[in-house]
Amino acid sequence: MSQRLGYIGMGIMGNPMARNLLKAGFSVSVYNRTREKTKDIEAEGASVCSSPQELAKRVDVIFTNVTDTPDVRAVLLGKDGVIEGCREGQVVIDNSTVSPRETREIAGILAERGVAFLDAPVSGGDIGAQKGTLTIMVGGDKAVYESCMPYFRAMGSTITWCGESGMGQMTKLCNQILCAVNMVATCECISLAKQAGLDVQTMLEVVSKGAGGSWALANLGPKIAQGDLRPGFMVQLIQKDLRLVMEAARTASLPLPGTALAQQLFTAVEAEGGGQLGTQAMIRTFERLGKFNIP
Amino acid sequence: MSQRLGYIGMGIMGNPMARNLLKAGFSVSVYNRTREKTKDIEAEGASVCSSPQELAKRVDVIFTNVTDTPDVRAVLLGKDGVIEGCREGQVVIDNSTVSPRETREIAGILAERGVAFLDAPVSGGDIGAQKGTLTIMVGGDKAVYESCMPYFRAMGSTITWCGESGMGQMTKLCNQILCAVNMVATCECISLAKQAGLDVQTMLEVVSKGAGGSWALANLGPKIAQGDLRPGFMVQLIQKDLRLVMEAARTASLPLPGTALAQQLFTAVEAEGGGQLGTQAMIRTFERLGKFNIP
Repeated sequence: MSQRLGYIGMGIMGNPMARNLLKAGFSVSVYNRTREKTKDIEAEGASVCSSPQELAKRVDVIFTNVTDTPDVRAVLLGKDGVIEGCREGQVVIDNSTVSPRETREIAGILAERGVAFLDAPVSGGDIGAQKGTLTIMVGGDKAVYESCMPYFRAMGSTITWCGESGMGQMTKLCNQILCAVNMVATCECISLAKQAGLDVQTMLEVVSKGAGGSWALANLGPKIAQGDLRPGFMVQLIQKDLRLVMEAARTASLPLPGTALAQQLFTAVEAEGGGQLGTQAMIRTFERLGKFNIP
Repeated sequence: MSQRLGYIGMGIMGNPMARNLLKAGFSVSVYNRTREKTKDIEAEGASVCSSPQELAKRVDVIFTNVTDTPDVRAVLLGKDGVIEGCREGQVVIDNSTVSPRETREIAGILAERGVAFLDAPVSGGDIGAQKGTLTIMVGGDKAVYESCMPYFRAMGSTITWCGESGMGQMTKLCNQILCAVNMVATCECISLAKQAGLDVQTMLEVVSKGAGGSWALANLGPKIAQGDLRPGFMVQLIQKDLRLVMEAARTASLPLPGTALAQQLFTAVEAEGGGQLGTQAMIRTFERLGKFNIP
């Protein structure tokens, strides 16, 4: 592979993902709005660009990993953006979690310049990003997807083509529904146990093994029981994702009352200043509702 | 062990549980309101009694496994019930899922006769009952619990003392919250996937492995995708359990909005005649809300 790669967005996910591309032997250029966050990867051999436009001129395949849909639009389509430096035959791969509908719009605009676009959001957290064990959910042209497998393999262990443009994002949104609503289940279960005078740890051990089990219960239940609300995955980030879920559901004329409830319970956490806590901080809402404290 | 055992309630759970006691070498007497359902176990060596009272006279340890709280009251405290045949030093073990509060009342009434009472609801379904791999959640006197371990070991593989009288039931109710609300998560996830045009099977494979994973998703998600709504665990039975959950939560002054939502979504399934389908039939409510059909 003589392809030159570029990575835009050196956040908690993008930075380790770009480093894994570098470790796999690819030539990597990077861009980040805050120059400071490119220091470590520059020391490991990446070239630092001064704009997405400059990066697009230098490389063949461009990755983006930024916070929200407007950020993807800005780095790809805005002033000094990728669109001002791109050329026919390039591929853009977006690892952010953003709107499936706007993903298709962006893909359409880039297609007019002869640039292919894959949506490829990930799950697995910062640990998965560091270890290269992410789940990567890809939407877009299947042949382009297949040509990009060497890059995906450097960053993830479960890589799936989910369908046409936007379907990677849609699969990620399905995943976020589960994360949010399974957290409601976990918090209500622990709240009843606490209020009824059960030993919460014992209860968790018993119910984790059976038909009530979930990743949320097994991994975040014990943190709740110990009063550890550090992120993990921040409340304000799942809230951004749930807004995308509800927008997609509205477009599909589908009510999602459980997801809407989770959104409201997280909003109550944010209202009390807990937006930067982990999603397990939903327990705070139940503590207020039930007038109890865990631990 | 020269203890003589009696088992009341030869339903889908009680019958295989009593047979496992028999297989473990215990002497077992049984009672069931419908005589017919005792035929198979009688052929395997159990004695059949004509009333709970007669059974209580014949045995040392009495198990009950009936549908709801009033049924437990009837076989234990009603006419021709256990209370009319019991004697000091006996133990009653209730494997039903019933009210924790009424469990404590019943335990108090039996204690006046010198009869110990353990609540010992189970999870693991009819398959777990047959294989002897149930999870058994026990509340009541710990020394009595320990003396009954040989019986529990014949019926289950994960046996836990959860606290004083009623705490086995309370732990079971915590488990049922998880089963119900994780089903909301599973159904909303599949509904969005279906409405958005994702391949549901592919989506399930991707999200099952990660932070959205749950027993419900892994075991009932594929059934939903295939249109298989056979029970498993019936809607009308989880509805009974959710009534117990909401009663316990009300007593504890705790709102459980997610569980209440699950209850309403199951009520919509019952309203359309689906009470005897498996809990995964909750998808039917979403199919009507979203005007789609799976598969």
